[in-house]
Amino acid sequence: MKEKLFVIKVGGKIVEEENTLKQLLSDFSKIAGYKILVHGGGRSATKIAEQLGIESKMVDGRRITDAKTLQVVTMVYGGLVNKNIVAGLQALGINALGMTGADMDVIRSVKRPVKDIDYGFVGDVKQVGDERLDLLLKQDIVPVLAPLTHDGRGNMLNTNADTIAAETAQAMSKHYDVTLIYCFEKKGVLMDEKDDASVISSLDRNRYKKYVEDGIIQGGMIPKLDNAFVSIDKGVSEVVITQASALGRNEGTRII
Amino acid sequence: MKEKLFVIKVGGKIVEEENTLKQLLSDFSKIAGYKILVHGGGRSATKIAEQLGIESKMVDGRRITDAKTLQVVTMVYGGLVNKNIVAGLQALGINALGMTGADMDVIRSVKRPVKDIDYGFVGDVKQVGDERLDLLLKQDIVPVLAPLTHDGRGNMLNTNADTIAAETAQAMSKHYDVTLIYCFEKKGVLMDEKDDASVISSLDRNRYKKYVEDGIIQGGMIPKLDNAFVSIDKGVSEVVITQASALGRNEGTRII
Repeated sequence: MKEKLFVIKVGGKIVEEENTLKQLLSDFSKIAGYKILVHGGGRSATKIAEQLGIESKMVDGRRITDAKTLQVVTMVYGGLVNKNIVAGLQALGINALGMTGADMDVIRSVKRPVKDIDYGFVGDVKQVGDERLDLLLKQDIVPVLAPLTHDGRGNMLNTNADTIAAETAQAMSKHYDVTLIYCFEKKGVLMDEKDDASVISSLDRNRYKKYVEDGIIQGGMIPKLDNAFVSIDKGVSEVVITQASALGRNEGTRII
Repeated sequence: MKEKLFVIKVGGKIVEEENTLKQLLSDFSKIAGYKILVHGGGRSATKIAEQLGIESKMVDGRRITDAKTLQVVTMVYGGLVNKNIVAGLQALGINALGMTGADMDVIRSVKRPVKDIDYGFVGDVKQVGDERLDLLLKQDIVPVLAPLTHDGRGNMLNTNADTIAAETAQAMSKHYDVTLIYCFEKKGVLMDEKDDASVISSLDRNRYKKYVEDGIIQGGMIPKLDNAFVSIDKGVSEVVITQASALGRNEGTRII
């Protein structure tokens, strides 16, 4: 039987504010066994870009990454946010190692082809170095992945953190029984958007289809859940959508 | 007999300009065997700080690091400069891993006590994780160290790159026959400052003392060389002071 591995993705908001970060790192440090943390950092990137006089252009929530913006996200995600998390985890006795996809070549991507929109220096994940990540995990190292990859030709590429988490979870399912946890602002997928207590505890494909048909699940939750089912199809044991503050408790919505 | 390890320190200027960086990485990639790269990045930090409206205060070439400046150096050294080098080395087939002292706890330091000058968030190296670096090297990973450490309590600290290189070289001499190479703008230590061809090829303690007494070696070169001899005393086999462009060639000044 494969050992358990948690791949946990936390959004920018949680890791960029001192109080929520502290709580998150404390919760994360208590999760037993193998784990990988994937983080965002968009708010800090936007803030620093603004201070540097660089305009942040977003299309459907994705950052258009020109050469100057690439420098900003490389600094902010790979340096500021990542090292803050790593130092915080080390203080809790977790042997964290901050990485981008370039480090040890753990995530290689291709620059997104230009179709309707030119996203600039944005990478679509091509290959995860699962053997190398496995080697680190077996040495009790906890990889902390910034939302940056490289193209193998010397260029860094801005890469969506949800995608990095999903691709990593999928690749690692060769070696582990993987639970992929997405932390977001709500307690889980809700039956009623206005009622935080209406968390759907478990979703399989049939119930999901029915809820979408009935209009219970809609909007931005649909691509999130579609991607969750893709991860299940690609070997991930379960995907959990929950609040960061519920990490380690048996809460949120399980996609199975 | 111990295997050879090269610890190579390159200054900011070389790694911050595209042409010199490209040449450096190419030269570095050709060095056979175990190696660790330590880099600076001060010019970029000063530039970004300036763009962010943060004044860079220097005392004797050391940066006074207040909270805002710490954010800048964490971004610039740990993100921008470090990842640029790592992606560049990966493109050359070198399995580089960018690290600060916080990553895998490889360099722990203490915040410099305030005496005459309050340097702020500046770290004096206390401990190098030589076993962990050894483990990485044995897996053909090439650590690329940014001039940042941590205090083990969750704080990053700005740390001089020359010091990181020296402390790392000293600690690794338990496991390896270490050559510590400082790359700077001159071809080596010169007999005549104005004559680039007057490189002193080799210096032992006696000749060094004599040259200082005779006024041949003076100024900023004295603390550099004093530190080189400290490294020799602490187990490093040889220290080489040379130009980055001479990496891999048998040039420069050998301190033995």
